Amino acid sequence: MASELLLLDLNVSPFAARVRIALEEKGLEYESREEDLDNKSPLLLEMNPVYKQVPVLIHKWKPISESSIIVQYIDEVWNHKSPLLPSDPYERAHARFWVDYIDKKIYPCGNKLWNLPKCEAQESAKKELMESFKTLEAELGDKPYFGSNSFNAVDITLIPFYSFFHSFEKLGNLSMVKECPKLVEWGERCMHKESVSKSVSDPIAVYEAVLEIKRNLGL
Amino acid sequence: MASELLLLDLNVSPFAARVRIALEEKGLEYESREEDLDNKSPLLLEMNPVYKQVPVLIHKWKPISESSIIVQYIDEVWNHKSPLLPSDPYERAHARFWVDYIDKKIYPCGNKLWNLPKCEAQESAKKELMESFKTLEAELGDKPYFGSNSFNAVDITLIPFYSFFHSFEKLGNLSMVKECPKLVEWGERCMHKESVSKSVSDPIAVYEAVLEIKRNLGL
Repeated sequence: MASELLLLDLNVSPFAARVRIALEEKGLEYESREEDLDNKSPLLLEMNPVYKQVPVLIHKWKPISESSIIVQYIDEVWNHKSPLLPSDPYERAHARFWVDYIDKKIYPCGNKLWNLPKCEAQESAKKELMESFKTLEAELGDKPYFGSNSFNAVDITLIPFYSFFHSFEKLGNLSMVKECPKLVEWGERCMHKESVSKSVSDPIAVYEAVLEIKRNLGL
Repeated sequence: MASELLLLDLNVSPFAARVRIALEEKGLEYESREEDLDNKSPLLLEMNPVYKQVPVLIHKWKPISESSIIVQYIDEVWNHKSPLLPSDPYERAHARFWVDYIDKKIYPCGNKLWNLPKCEAQESAKKELMESFKTLEAELGDKPYFGSNSFNAVDITLIPFYSFFHSFEKLGNLSMVKECPKLVEWGERCMHKESVSKSVSDPIAVYEAVLEIKRNLGL
């Protein structure tokens, strides 16, 4: 590879977007190699034999998988600028709690909105998703970013799902700005950062992809 | 509290056991307060309002939740002895990958062995559980501990489930020593450590608890 950093990437993946944002925040040059999920590259299968999933960051030919772990790795190796996690252990544990919360709640619940037929399980997933967003809104409070005045790892974990808000609204028949006005403001604020706007998906493209998933599932 | 460390604890919880082991490894004195899950204490509800679950470690009246995050916190604050995570960022990311893998696979799959009636989903959970153990056995290789010659955070994450092997064998009609001989040896090795043997549950008690869960579910 030309650069010492190679990202096995997928443009539409919110998890890959987290890594792209972290790399941009640190001002790192990297090579992005787009994967085809229907025909995964031998390199992806070799570098992430456990999950065979993007993103994988390859640094000097050593692979790191799982987006939240990659973001922490980037922060620890390139710690000279734009710290993504707090230096205080308690605050760091607090940030990790919210990174983990987003990982456990947002995609797993959101996913059910388009992978399930209209049923009780879908309704319950929608309810849990909105409760999670309200919990996140309460945690954000009046700060510009999560727990901080500067953009950080918790923001990086959540912001790729800002592009999914439009899909959640359409499929869940709800208004994010009514339900979680501060979270919508936070999303707009993050989108003013070039590292974010160039890395996340277009909301309309996400919605079209979601509709295609539903069509393919016969829903 | 008498000590500056208070653990909202549950003797039978494999997640609380992780925290007890980490505290013992660091030689820290702490007060353990056993919770009653049918009647959670106001302190637990106040200290972990999001999940309302044990374990919660309260350090100088500040709460930390989620066992893997607590173990990292303990390691970062009391870094003078028994390092639990490697100092090299790449090796640390590697260890975090396996901690996360155990969190995602072992309890969620194992749980289905006793929470589901005999059905396809239960069979598929059993298959995934055994594949996960084989993946962990391969990762362990010929080392005494995960990725290392010394007991560490990955071992701490998995070892409380060694007490569940007996239940997995009974309910899954399998032999762990035949399926994963190195993992069983590793478990025996860890059990020689006092920090572990005094913190994990008795396998027979786990199996009895599991049978009671099944009875209560009418299975």
